[in-house]
Amino acid sequence: MKNLLINDYNTGLDYDGIDGGRLAERLEAISKIGVLPTGGVSRPGFSQEEKLAKELVIGWMKEAGLTVETDAAGNVFGRLNGDDNSQSIASGSHVDTVPAGGNFDGVLGVLAALEVAEAWKVSGYTPKKSYEVVIFSDEEGARFSSGVFGSRSYMGFVDDELIASLKDNEGLNLEEVLEQYGSSLKEYKNIQQRDWTFFAEAHIEQGKLLEKNNLPVGIVNGIAGQAWLEVEFKGQAGHAGNTPMNDRQDALVAAGRFVSELENIPKIVSSTAVATVGKLAVSPNGANVIPESVKMIVDIRDIHEDTRDRLLELVTERAESIAKERNIGVTVSGTSRVKPVPVEEVYKQELHNILNDLNIEATELPSGAGHDSMNIGLELPVAMIFARSKDGISHNPKEWTSLNDCVMTVHVLKKFIEIQMNK
Amino acid sequence: MKNLLINDYNTGLDYDGIDGGRLAERLEAISKIGVLPTGGVSRPGFSQEEKLAKELVIGWMKEAGLTVETDAAGNVFGRLNGDDNSQSIASGSHVDTVPAGGNFDGVLGVLAALEVAEAWKVSGYTPKKSYEVVIFSDEEGARFSSGVFGSRSYMGFVDDELIASLKDNEGLNLEEVLEQYGSSLKEYKNIQQRDWTFFAEAHIEQGKLLEKNNLPVGIVNGIAGQAWLEVEFKGQAGHAGNTPMNDRQDALVAAGRFVSELENIPKIVSSTAVATVGKLAVSPNGANVIPESVKMIVDIRDIHEDTRDRLLELVTERAESIAKERNIGVTVSGTSRVKPVPVEEVYKQELHNILNDLNIEATELPSGAGHDSMNIGLELPVAMIFARSKDGISHNPKEWTSLNDCVMTVHVLKKFIEIQMNK
Repeated sequence: MKNLLINDYNTGLDYDGIDGGRLAERLEAISKIGVLPTGGVSRPGFSQEEKLAKELVIGWMKEAGLTVETDAAGNVFGRLNGDDNSQSIASGSHVDTVPAGGNFDGVLGVLAALEVAEAWKVSGYTPKKSYEVVIFSDEEGARFSSGVFGSRSYMGFVDDELIASLKDNEGLNLEEVLEQYGSSLKEYKNIQQRDWTFFAEAHIEQGKLLEKNNLPVGIVNGIAGQAWLEVEFKGQAGHAGNTPMNDRQDALVAAGRFVSELENIPKIVSSTAVATVGKLAVSPNGANVIPESVKMIVDIRDIHEDTRDRLLELVTERAESIAKERNIGVTVSGTSRVKPVPVEEVYKQELHNILNDLNIEATELPSGAGHDSMNIGLELPVAMIFARSKDGISHNPKEWTSLNDCVMTVHVLKKFIEIQMNK
Repeated sequence: MKNLLINDYNTGLDYDGIDGGRLAERLEAISKIGVLPTGGVSRPGFSQEEKLAKELVIGWMKEAGLTVETDAAGNVFGRLNGDDNSQSIASGSHVDTVPAGGNFDGVLGVLAALEVAEAWKVSGYTPKKSYEVVIFSDEEGARFSSGVFGSRSYMGFVDDELIASLKDNEGLNLEEVLEQYGSSLKEYKNIQQRDWTFFAEAHIEQGKLLEKNNLPVGIVNGIAGQAWLEVEFKGQAGHAGNTPMNDRQDALVAAGRFVSELENIPKIVSSTAVATVGKLAVSPNGANVIPESVKMIVDIRDIHEDTRDRLLELVTERAESIAKERNIGVTVSGTSRVKPVPVEEVYKQELHNILNDLNIEATELPSGAGHDSMNIGLELPVAMIFARSKDGISHNPKEWTSLNDCVMTVHVLKKFIEIQMNK
């Protein structure tokens, strides 16, 4: 992978202490941990592979002069003391992957944060506040089918009820997994937040917007809060041959109209809102039986809670009005609702200025996917920077971000953190 | 069941030799063969239960003075010789059922045809032409998952290729099933059509139209020919959070629009045409993944081949135009196409006159489901009469037609057959 990264690298990006070759070597080194013969890498949360990747980064942290601590959830904190060591700015991401995942999701954010410290070391810069490079455990949630688990644990959002419900694929509970990992449930329950006042995360986009606009880096204007509605239309089954068209209560015709109208609703509330039906089941699902019921999940997201919740209302109303017009039943129930985390105006403006200075068109885009920043952002200000993803592909061995784009992301992250240091 | 039938019976309907009590007793007797402890009856084609039901009817046929023959497919023919024994008029249906089926589907048509002969016996009427009461085997196709099997066999429509493909649930082929039943494949391949010039079938509606119009009996204007189109919309999968609404190729949005517009297409070609999507599958069907493909079966029927085929074209065009507008792919392929059997004007007019004389509003309705008449109708003129179905329910233990409606159906069938006898 290193050669692939280096081949088209523009060494003109090596300035201010940032070194593309070093970043390429580190991306390469981590890409070899958990590599699968069938392609891709697998480093599930709390696995030996995730631990090896963390240990590799810990070594680099120490070489860069950082003091490393871990908490009982396996989260890693590499601290560079600033002139004022009473508070700190943090940046990082994760090194675990989905099964057969790629080499940039998470890893770029960790290495970019570390590269900022490396650059400072080269240039002899000591930040005013302290700086922490962070590796969160188990962001993908592959271990317990429970996403952003390390950052949730760090923030103290994993309560006893959730702990009791956790089981991994082998039937191990959290206590057993932690003990295998070299920690304990007692320590886990005693995890303390650190002295951060701000958290920044660099991440690959996992979408195509930057690529379509030919931009290496973009400003995340918020992390969308996902909410799921379960919508079920209930009509009446009937013989597909013996029931005249004007005497039907066809649940799928209602559902079809709902799904086809759904795409026009998000823009009513905001330009960042999205609504998707990805999962749908017809019952009884016989080719010659008029569908009695159609059940689906509507995935609804926006970066602002008010618009997201307004969208939930509008979607519910639309389902109900279609059902009423067609004289069939409908039930709409919310099955999950995550709080969106918008990025404050001041951080977006700072990033605009940085990108303008770098002659990059400043473009804002929402993060539709969840990230560790989402948990931190529930209590602290956060910001995110996205690096362009080739073809928008992620969670896949084909996931790719060019070294030029990775390094540009580091430059933006470094300048942005320096602004926070000087506040 | 007999008491339930008799309870609300209007004995004023017992005239012209037709006897509601006899019909109720016979419906009752057959309903006890293959009765399930969980409700309903099960008399699959070529089963012992179907055979017992046939033998019961054969006994009644003989008592009524009919000469009984069977063919190698197990079809039963009870013949009453007429003044001219060189040709015959036939009527009947079937006594097999779907698993856990009801007591009227098929059985009513057989007993109604027999009751016509009984009535003639009482009144001393000898028809001009000969008359055959028919029981077709395995109409429901439960044995080989291949419907209207007995009448297809009778007509010679089961070719060697189809024979080679037939396997029942226990893995038996047609030869083995026939031998178990007391027949042979050699005799089966030598089945000859009889001297019929016309076939009439009484059947329960299996729909709600007569009930909604408060009518005991209706005139079938044709047996719809079913055609299936497999339609697959192919878009592009994507992250439900990271793909803006205006950059999607969502196969389900296209499919939803198609399904919701489908209901308006049949009326363009005729008042009897129907189109239904009963079976639909989304892929990959993950709640947070934009659907990549949606595959469905469109069931399309009409009683005229030209309008049915025009409907197939219109539906195909609509699928293609929606895909084109939405910039996604679509494939449409025909997977089966059965010829519709319209009923000739002269028979419908005769039935109109009969119903008018009985002070019943003459209403025509299509048969959306297939029936044995469909096979006979490919070579001979046929007609069908529907009896009102309670709540339109069929293929279900709750299937019900009142004795009044059953007897009224016999009156109509008798008068109608007498008209054919005198032509």
